[in-house]
Amino acid sequence: MAEVSLCPPLTRESVQAAHKRIKQYIHRTPVVTCDTINTLASTPQSKRCPSSGPNVLSEPAPHDLRLDVKATRYSAEPNVRLFFKCENQQRIGAFKARGAFHALGRLIDEQGIDEVRRKGVVTHSSGNHAQALALAARTHDVPAHIVMPTISTPSKISGTQAQGANVIFSGSTSDEREAVVVDVMKKTGATLVPPYDHPDIILGQGTQALELEQQVIDLLAGNAKLGVPSKHGLDAVIAPIGGGGMLSGICTALQGTGIKVFGAEPNFEGANDAEIGLKQNKRIEKVKTLTIADGLRTPVGEIPWSIVTDKSKLAGIYSVNEDQIKAALRLAMERAKLFIEPSAAVPLAVMLYNEEFRELVQREAGPGGWNVGIILSGGNTTVDAIAAIFAPPVKVEQRTQATVGANGEKVVENVAG
Amino acid sequence: MAEVSLCPPLTRESVQAAHKRIKQYIHRTPVVTCDTINTLASTPQSKRCPSSGPNVLSEPAPHDLRLDVKATRYSAEPNVRLFFKCENQQRIGAFKARGAFHALGRLIDEQGIDEVRRKGVVTHSSGNHAQALALAARTHDVPAHIVMPTISTPSKISGTQAQGANVIFSGSTSDEREAVVVDVMKKTGATLVPPYDHPDIILGQGTQALELEQQVIDLLAGNAKLGVPSKHGLDAVIAPIGGGGMLSGICTALQGTGIKVFGAEPNFEGANDAEIGLKQNKRIEKVKTLTIADGLRTPVGEIPWSIVTDKSKLAGIYSVNEDQIKAALRLAMERAKLFIEPSAAVPLAVMLYNEEFRELVQREAGPGGWNVGIILSGGNTTVDAIAAIFAPPVKVEQRTQATVGANGEKVVENVAG
Repeated sequence: MAEVSLCPPLTRESVQAAHKRIKQYIHRTPVVTCDTINTLASTPQSKRCPSSGPNVLSEPAPHDLRLDVKATRYSAEPNVRLFFKCENQQRIGAFKARGAFHALGRLIDEQGIDEVRRKGVVTHSSGNHAQALALAARTHDVPAHIVMPTISTPSKISGTQAQGANVIFSGSTSDEREAVVVDVMKKTGATLVPPYDHPDIILGQGTQALELEQQVIDLLAGNAKLGVPSKHGLDAVIAPIGGGGMLSGICTALQGTGIKVFGAEPNFEGANDAEIGLKQNKRIEKVKTLTIADGLRTPVGEIPWSIVTDKSKLAGIYSVNEDQIKAALRLAMERAKLFIEPSAAVPLAVMLYNEEFRELVQREAGPGGWNVGIILSGGNTTVDAIAAIFAPPVKVEQRTQATVGANGEKVVENVAG
Repeated sequence: MAEVSLCPPLTRESVQAAHKRIKQYIHRTPVVTCDTINTLASTPQSKRCPSSGPNVLSEPAPHDLRLDVKATRYSAEPNVRLFFKCENQQRIGAFKARGAFHALGRLIDEQGIDEVRRKGVVTHSSGNHAQALALAARTHDVPAHIVMPTISTPSKISGTQAQGANVIFSGSTSDEREAVVVDVMKKTGATLVPPYDHPDIILGQGTQALELEQQVIDLLAGNAKLGVPSKHGLDAVIAPIGGGGMLSGICTALQGTGIKVFGAEPNFEGANDAEIGLKQNKRIEKVKTLTIADGLRTPVGEIPWSIVTDKSKLAGIYSVNEDQIKAALRLAMERAKLFIEPSAAVPLAVMLYNEEFRELVQREAGPGGWNVGIILSGGNTTVDAIAAIFAPPVKVEQRTQATVGANGEKVVENVAG
């Protein structure tokens, strides 16, 4: 990748330039709305009836401790219209295609296509970035080397190979993977394209915010009669934060527009490293969590951190628990009809279940409410994985017990249901 | 409903007028594409590698019996670009909102809003039509009486009530339901709005084809660099057929455009009544099937039948088995990231797995291939239902056996896995 010091500045104009560069290669993903979820999000958690969807009360907000808890808890009633940006329908099934096409395009501009084709590119990833880089490389006829742990699932390996990439196996620790990357770079001269901690990646990921901004304006103009007040456009955007490439890109894209940007994180086993880091005023460098939002297990990178800690760029980070993520995942599928991966459900979960965030929206938006963009970052999961989340395989040992009856006959009973 | 003889003629112009009437009330649902499914659909079934997705070979086409089966079976190689019309993201989660808004709008025009509000509307349905009519009625402040079998699932009952409809219970046979409808009509003067067998419904459902036609033209113009040949627009559309309201509406909308319209049906337990009826030249009036495509268990209605039997309007009907529907359902979710109900997967299943249809496309389209619209008719299912389809709940009784050991001790064994 280009030297960081030689990259374009992290400004809205640079995101606009990035969009111009990549838009022929990516999908302008749809933006959809859902009346039912709007109603649910605009109803206090304590007043939601079971038939309107999952009812997963949020943890009490910290400042509840200072108040009459019974009277105030779960009573926030923000008025929101949600606009889902469907990056699950982006090429390779996630927003990562944007950053990869931008980074590779910039590299080609700097070094020339012949040089880039001769040397190739390399990354280590078993996730969406691997497939995104493989696709961008194939499109420009550039060799791509993807270092993947030996223990990666076969479908991910074959998926990356299907994009024409050269898959190289490594051990599963980050040291082992990086050693293989260094080896590939030495042997081939390939350029490393990191997944999030680089300006070119950040600028590419930010392009989705420019589309969303315009799409919401268009939708509001066209659907005035559907009962949506014809406000100017977006008031806020909520996006997931893992490594932070996307969230910091969106912050960059929307700076100066008046649209507030919020980050959303799982809080299982400390996955909310960005939220905690903001409070402690210190970037957390290691995270070890098995949250179902597996795209968000990463600590925030250095450059993203420098952006999300800028209060003129990011308005706050809020987190949710595993049950709240599952409930939002269910609603996105059953109500908005969108097939998304668990990580992509985290911003919706914050909107629906984080009481502190809901209070903030009610307070700042007032009765007129807010138009809120919800980033659905990706959809790379399987029906089997979804089935496992919502109908965990029954463990026979836990569900039956056999005893011997008084007369020595066998008796099998179902325990639980 | 209006007297059939007084309805607008079943022409493209009438569908255009219907669209003008309803477009302020409905979503212009997105059209999405998916590279992976395009590649899969353009690869012979026999040559698909397992990693590219489900591999469910179709039944041999009837005329294979006349040929060297081994050489020709599953070798059709049509070249297709698919365009998914996302009616799963329509209001109430299915295309039915179109027909309901059109039928009610026409009724109001004929009788005057005061008269319609005084008398109300009635239908019997436990499915998407019930919610669609309830929504349209609520929008126009008209009372809606929905007759539902007592055994309907509670979520469907509360969903219909949530739209403000008056739910009236009946027995579950069609005689019992119709008796209750007649009773409601007598008591309230309410007008019956049938689910499919009426010109106003048919014209409303056809409006999605007009949107799709234009959206594909726009997409092809905007995405020329994505590798899609810049052809004029759609060559064909495949839509599901149950009662036939939607398919006959699409036939009507596209007549004279040169775009071929095909119907898609499940063939489990004779659910392919339209396909069989076309061959026998006689409408089949009763169907009893438990296909997973539960929206397509209905026999074709009389007016739709008069349209789909017109060879200038419908190019043919093709059917698929349950495994093929499941495989297409999986691909729509995992690859196109769309949450759909099983009925909505049937047209994609025909495109991917019906060898007779694939041979036809190859023959008629030639090497340049076809742009094919695939109607995703609805998304009203749950993650639990999807989980049950792809990971059937384990029956404990079938999985364990308890025996008494030689010494009278209890022994529990896992059978199967």
